[in-house]
Amino acid sequence: MKNILLLGAGRSASSLIDYLLQNAPNENWHIRIGDIVVSHLQSVIDHLPFAEAIVFNVHDEAQREAEVKQADLVISLLPAVFHIEVAQECLKQEKHLITASYVTPAFLELHAEAQQKNITILMESGLDPGIDHMSAMAAIQHIQAKGGKLTSFKSYTGGLIAPESDDNPWNYKFTWNPRNVVLAGQGTAKYIRNGGYKYIPYHQLFTRTEDIFVEGYGHFEGYANRDSLSYREPYNLHDIPTMLRGTLRRKGYCAAWNVFVQLGLTDDSYSLEGSENMTYRSYLEAFLPPTINGQTIEQRLANYTGIEEQGEIMQKLAWLDLFSENPVELANATPAQVLEKILKEKWQLEHGDKDMIVMQHLFQYELDGEKHEFTSSLVVKGDDEVHTAMAKTVGLPVAILAKLLLQGKITQRGVVIPIHPELYEPVLEELKAYGINFVEQERVLSVL
Amino acid sequence: MKNILLLGAGRSASSLIDYLLQNAPNENWHIRIGDIVVSHLQSVIDHLPFAEAIVFNVHDEAQREAEVKQADLVISLLPAVFHIEVAQECLKQEKHLITASYVTPAFLELHAEAQQKNITILMESGLDPGIDHMSAMAAIQHIQAKGGKLTSFKSYTGGLIAPESDDNPWNYKFTWNPRNVVLAGQGTAKYIRNGGYKYIPYHQLFTRTEDIFVEGYGHFEGYANRDSLSYREPYNLHDIPTMLRGTLRRKGYCAAWNVFVQLGLTDDSYSLEGSENMTYRSYLEAFLPPTINGQTIEQRLANYTGIEEQGEIMQKLAWLDLFSENPVELANATPAQVLEKILKEKWQLEHGDKDMIVMQHLFQYELDGEKHEFTSSLVVKGDDEVHTAMAKTVGLPVAILAKLLLQGKITQRGVVIPIHPELYEPVLEELKAYGINFVEQERVLSVL
Repeated sequence: MKNILLLGAGRSASSLIDYLLQNAPNENWHIRIGDIVVSHLQSVIDHLPFAEAIVFNVHDEAQREAEVKQADLVISLLPAVFHIEVAQECLKQEKHLITASYVTPAFLELHAEAQQKNITILMESGLDPGIDHMSAMAAIQHIQAKGGKLTSFKSYTGGLIAPESDDNPWNYKFTWNPRNVVLAGQGTAKYIRNGGYKYIPYHQLFTRTEDIFVEGYGHFEGYANRDSLSYREPYNLHDIPTMLRGTLRRKGYCAAWNVFVQLGLTDDSYSLEGSENMTYRSYLEAFLPPTINGQTIEQRLANYTGIEEQGEIMQKLAWLDLFSENPVELANATPAQVLEKILKEKWQLEHGDKDMIVMQHLFQYELDGEKHEFTSSLVVKGDDEVHTAMAKTVGLPVAILAKLLLQGKITQRGVVIPIHPELYEPVLEELKAYGINFVEQERVLSVL
Repeated sequence: MKNILLLGAGRSASSLIDYLLQNAPNENWHIRIGDIVVSHLQSVIDHLPFAEAIVFNVHDEAQREAEVKQADLVISLLPAVFHIEVAQECLKQEKHLITASYVTPAFLELHAEAQQKNITILMESGLDPGIDHMSAMAAIQHIQAKGGKLTSFKSYTGGLIAPESDDNPWNYKFTWNPRNVVLAGQGTAKYIRNGGYKYIPYHQLFTRTEDIFVEGYGHFEGYANRDSLSYREPYNLHDIPTMLRGTLRRKGYCAAWNVFVQLGLTDDSYSLEGSENMTYRSYLEAFLPPTINGQTIEQRLANYTGIEEQGEIMQKLAWLDLFSENPVELANATPAQVLEKILKEKWQLEHGDKDMIVMQHLFQYELDGEKHEFTSSLVVKGDDEVHTAMAKTVGLPVAILAKLLLQGKITQRGVVIPIHPELYEPVLEELKAYGINFVEQERVLSVL
């Protein structure tokens, strides 16, 4: 019997938990699921002899030690900031660990010791990062194996709302952490294009989008993620002239979101004096230049941000009640916290709503005197507002990698991300059975 | 005899040193001047029995202790980051200290102990902060003493180039730390207007300027400083409906500087890969959107930032050689560091150049059913590129306060800024003899 300790049982863990429970009898697993709140799991696991739910506090050092001790493998879907402590405990007790979070410098420091102790700390194993690595590496491997020379790689991912649940003018709802959506893109986007570095400051980011088309799902717009340059090394694409990773939204979203950025509403670095007494309208007013000639607030906003007073963007803003006297009711709030509250009123997933994950990799490569384009696209829809596409695409690759690791099929040791064939090939294959399946298209662009 | 220890003997200390040396015989002072380099002082002080120059390293704890021990008063014009260690030493040895730097939270922690030990740590005693506090408090006192109710206070200061030395299209040269000029305004500007808070994000700051007129010197433009709100408390203007502090530039500067901000050239938060191989032109290229239809780099810059291709702003940029293939020659440089290098090539003070300090306070107040405007303006020019207006206006108030403190005329103890009449009245009076003299204008705006 193998003991799995799963830390984190929130909404994004639903598909992961389902997979573990379904596979436990065959694989001879015993599963302990720990989180601050686990009462919602009782009805599912009460009758299962091989699963237990426990109230788990990651800050309780004694509990952390005791729980890791019983496990053969630890899986963590806790917020990323808690992972380093979990990893240190796993290393001390020589247990494998899998998470969906980014490898940070603190994790790199654990690499040598983990290798020496024959332990695997498998990171970036969810959707983005995770499936993006796996599918990109599979495609790169496919192109390079036939002798193709990669000249361009762009990769976009978006957590969106499915068309059948898309009933608002933003064509967007919160399908993951709203705070992260509000703060998305802050910093400077860095990528490389035709051999030249490109830098986009945050306040320009949402004006510099690219049109992305996905067969059967229409047009999207992509904006660049913060650091595309750092992916050249793990993907072994050191000299690639063009490389960009980005985020997808439905057409029109970015131009409207840019109004928030231009005003400064996404700033999370300071608190607004008297925010508890603000209304949505007075909050907006605080970011507008002073009134001139009795213009309306809508006219001033339009003039200041360069949008049309009667246009689609203004309709999107009005639909959020941004011009209303609705009370903010948050004390010492940052501008970003107020914006998050305003958006949460309108962008919540309703009962039965389906989310949708869209990912597209666009490659260009040279082979036999021709320039080729290779596109690999993924669309996954959620079943409902609990069994979301986000939960599937984050949780299932983690779960499959856990199975492979316990089956002894993963030989990589140390701090590892799923860019190796022994990891990504079986995962991508098994994901197909869950409807997580890339559609590939290839065509000749030109003769060189 | 009183011993003065002056730390910091750079260019900005020239007027302070002159004042101390001139007053030493009458006041019975002995002066020790310490800095990393003091050789430039030898010719001035070699024949003076009451002055010595010493090589001083602020990080040498033993030297710091020994030098402070000999002093009755320490004056520091060192970079602000070093002041807290100097202050802690002064406190330990119960010596007074004067600096021109801002009171930081670390200094506030010293307040109670300094009071208890009967020590004065006099901060913000230069130009801005310094003369701005003193002259503002004098005007506020003047207005409130006659029963006026303040409704608006705006205050602008600029370190500029004098008209007779103004020979470039930016109407600007570096008269103080170039790095601070490049980074100026980063963060969010916060002020209050007609009772409502106003927040301006950095990327909008240079578009939201106010016209400022100074009799005899023409028009300037002012942009808001980071935090005007924090000045309500020291100035005792808690309920004032409008309060703004800002920075002055010559007309046209801000619109051109805004191009740098829009591109992201003032960002100091990351290093450019391969900056050592960049030219000014390729540096600029890295911040522009990709080429379309064979447009020139000037056309693309104009389209992206919304400036005219043949206009004054473009001429300012071209004058800086921004479009040239001049080599950057800086490794691992941030965008801001490259911009600083480009500007330093062009904005250096030449031999004989005169700088110019401009400060203007604009008050509105109500009295006897009338709305009044009271304006207090200061213009100070430098003598040459060493005896600058900046050195005078930073050094002389510090020097005069040092004299008053040693004469026992300052009774305030603890961490103090010059907002009390016993400090600002004699300083403002004595500054007049050095040509640092505010011109006041008063008029009735309307009958209420």
